[in-house]
Amino acid sequence: MRFCRFGDGRLGLVEESHVRDVTAALDALPVYRYPFPQHDLFIANLDKIMDRVRTIAGSSPSVPLKDVQLLSPVANPSKIIGAPVNYQKHLDEVRGDAQLHHDNQAHIAVIQKTGLFLKACSALIGPSEGIALRKLDRRNDHEVELAVVIGKRANSISSADALNYVAGYTIGLDLTIRGPEERSLRKSADTYAVLGPWLVTADEITNPGNLNLKISVNGEERQNSNTKYMILGVPELIEFASAFYTLNPGDVIMTGTPEGVSPIQPGDNILASIEKIGTMAVKVRAA
Amino acid sequence: MRFCRFGDGRLGLVEESHVRDVTAALDALPVYRYPFPQHDLFIANLDKIMDRVRTIAGSSPSVPLKDVQLLSPVANPSKIIGAPVNYQKHLDEVRGDAQLHHDNQAHIAVIQKTGLFLKACSALIGPSEGIALRKLDRRNDHEVELAVVIGKRANSISSADALNYVAGYTIGLDLTIRGPEERSLRKSADTYAVLGPWLVTADEITNPGNLNLKISVNGEERQNSNTKYMILGVPELIEFASAFYTLNPGDVIMTGTPEGVSPIQPGDNILASIEKIGTMAVKVRAA
Repeated sequence: MRFCRFGDGRLGLVEESHVRDVTAALDALPVYRYPFPQHDLFIANLDKIMDRVRTIAGSSPSVPLKDVQLLSPVANPSKIIGAPVNYQKHLDEVRGDAQLHHDNQAHIAVIQKTGLFLKACSALIGPSEGIALRKLDRRNDHEVELAVVIGKRANSISSADALNYVAGYTIGLDLTIRGPEERSLRKSADTYAVLGPWLVTADEITNPGNLNLKISVNGEERQNSNTKYMILGVPELIEFASAFYTLNPGDVIMTGTPEGVSPIQPGDNILASIEKIGTMAVKVRAA
Repeated sequence: MRFCRFGDGRLGLVEESHVRDVTAALDALPVYRYPFPQHDLFIANLDKIMDRVRTIAGSSPSVPLKDVQLLSPVANPSKIIGAPVNYQKHLDEVRGDAQLHHDNQAHIAVIQKTGLFLKACSALIGPSEGIALRKLDRRNDHEVELAVVIGKRANSISSADALNYVAGYTIGLDLTIRGPEERSLRKSADTYAVLGPWLVTADEITNPGNLNLKISVNGEERQNSNTKYMILGVPELIEFASAFYTLNPGDVIMTGTPEGVSPIQPGDNILASIEKIGTMAVKVRAA
């Protein structure tokens, strides 16, 4: 199934060029008082929601996809994790360009040594909200990535078991302000984590390690690669991450970007695609 | 006022050696369905809660402080921010010890260049929950810090205005696995962000830039300094952070640790104190 969130927080089932408004299925989720749980409630109850959706979809109103404002398909991740330099050719281009590495050794080490980084959850948006660039005196880059959404609490999971902990996949843009600071700061500005256009449940993508992904800016292709070139694949990233901390339902792992990162400016139009997921359009403006 | 969270999520007003159970004041907070807001509901409504507490405290049951299990005074931060090497003498000790810098230039740059880092919200605990050490083949360090809790949405705030955005202060332990990886990974293991013993509202600490802070392990003093030695003070940290991203009510800034960081082991007993806040005891175990 393909689930989008749209409008004022509605749940949609994506069918070709239309969206079934299945918001009523969210009635299956419990109501909360403070404090809130540390996971995404929709993702944690995905099986239950999918059952409800199967029952109500046929009688739910259908709206054209082109008419809906798409939000992030995950609303409440407890963390958004990034995988730095996880494609060899991207590592090569970073090592060869001072504008990318800023003489910081931590920016050019292999991922096994650099480890993973965090993006602030306050940076999260969906494609229709658009990217608002900060620090316009610096270079700001697009980075297209396969984003993995964790479905079950995962602590110290082996790579062999890891895919059992995945709820689904979506496209991620890991927007980046270049500079000397740690990634967790430069990649955490508001709107610098885009997820969309929807969540494709894991049953539709049995092998996340062989998906074409690409991005264009104003119609010009900038990145075009395949997830088979990732240094650490999805199972290995889950093993690596869950050895340090518990992954909660709704947590997102952005799996790294291939070669071809390049600057974006206010006014740009981004189009990002991943095979078996879809395409999302995102506009860029100044903050 | 001094607010603690305790037991199964109860709200307490700390009065000397006792706690008034003022959980009923939380009834002022709205009930939510999915999705949840991106801020801490208690902190966002602190003024309203304080009004209620003034009304009900006198008639609320009182329990001895020593009998309560203390949770983190903030339950739902949208981000926990760290200030690396923010005391000159700590930067000096990191530069002089390969066990601390691991030949990573990013670990020995000044804070203005290193920037801030994120700790995973899934790492957050209160003192009674105890620290569960991971990666026992590596060095794990205590770091005592003044923790600032943001009270109002703050975006691009000047240091002159910054203290108006503070809800209060608490003690933070920024537990750290040493190694070559980015701080946002090594400092994000479950239980590696301790806040407590309670939140002291900002009206009780007009100058966060002159507070003694110290930590002992098994009765032996390890760190003893004063927040006046911070390189970037609380107002400057808020200005720096809010230039990159919006700070939400409940967001936490751990302001950096002074010199004297040293290893901890399972079985250790930590005692951390900050002037005008109090003292918290935290036990250490293996994960």
